[in-house]
Amino acid sequence: MSVLEQLIEALKRLPGVGQKSAQRMAYHLLQHDREGARSLALALQAAAEQIGHCQRCHTFSETPLCGICADPARDARLLCVVESPADQAALERSNSYKGYYFVLLGRISPLDGVGVRQIGATELLQRAAETAVEEVILATSFTAEGEATAHVLAEALRSRGIRVTRLARGVPVGSELEYVDLGTIAHALVDRR
Amino acid sequence: MSVLEQLIEALKRLPGVGQKSAQRMAYHLLQHDREGARSLALALQAAAEQIGHCQRCHTFSETPLCGICADPARDARLLCVVESPADQAALERSNSYKGYYFVLLGRISPLDGVGVRQIGATELLQRAAETAVEEVILATSFTAEGEATAHVLAEALRSRGIRVTRLARGVPVGSELEYVDLGTIAHALVDRR
Ligand SMILES: [Zn+2]
Ligand SMILES: [Zn+2]
Repeated sequence: MSVLEQLIEALKRLPGVGQKSAQRMAYHLLQHDREGARSLALALQAAAEQIGHCQRCHTFSETPLCGICADPARDARLLCVVESPADQAALERSNSYKGYYFVLLGRISPLDGVGVRQIGATELLQRAAETAVEEVILATSFTAEGEATAHVLAEALRSRGIRVTRLARGVPVGSELEYVDLGTIAHALVDRR
Repeated sequence: MSVLEQLIEALKRLPGVGQKSAQRMAYHLLQHDREGARSLALALQAAAEQIGHCQRCHTFSETPLCGICADPARDARLLCVVESPADQAALERSNSYKGYYFVLLGRISPLDGVGVRQIGATELLQRAAETAVEEVILATSFTAEGEATAHVLAEALRSRGIRVTRLARGVPVGSELEYVDLGTIAHALVDRR
């Protein structure tokens, strides 16, 4: 494979990028933006090497503790559980939540062999058992798998005497939190049940 | 800017990638495909450093002479002029042309200050004057700028006694060669005028 073909193949690993877009991207970078190609290479390398997971909430972080977990001004009584760093970022942008987060590593999917343990539920139960926590808000997606995940986690948390709420149905059923508009997210937070 | 934000910014330099897609790509690579991020970084670096231009036809090449220019089995009587390496690749995939190429560096665009000289016309006139060349096929796009480019080049070539043809109108007017289906390209080559 030529260097150009290798570049096209590598670009096809990006989500939503097929053969035609990959070709267009490669030709564009080579013909008009080699500087862009170089800075993208550096950014990818830096991200792959320097971005790990916050040891407390599991979101992406360059430091052992992420910016939110390291912020003492957040409301320690609230702990919001999301499926991914992207979902957490969407909640943050809605500017309507001031507690802490716990980021699951995906959602339960029995067919793919992803159970409660694989998504970090053990660490969540420990985190939720800290004395400051008064309420765990389950903000997993309103998809079948997200609902199942919320159900299983709610049972485990309630059996330990922890108060559990769920985002209100302001979030359209069947949609992924990441792509929901911010107003809807804000509304769903206020109406949590 | 965090390493993650830098990655999102760098991804936005890819054609057709806005804020949302860039975020989705960054989160996907970090969460599910760090190996993909690393190989894309290496491929970009290798491409930016190792891919130059063929000294004879100006297309992308890792070697001083590209594979086509180095192939003595091609028909030296034909020289096909295209606007970009992507257009050349489309012609090659149509499997209906066995001559050599000359790749312009874009097309004439007076408003952007791109004139005949900027697209490599001087080198084209030299190349077309070689004794083996009997016909120059102008395969610039059938857009206003592509037609203007073909017109200017045809005049310059004809004034030097060189036979000039143009791809037939099989190619839909207003479209870019790169995105034309291969059958249409093949037909247009046969019907060149
Ligand atoms: Zn954290
Ligand atoms: Zn060449």
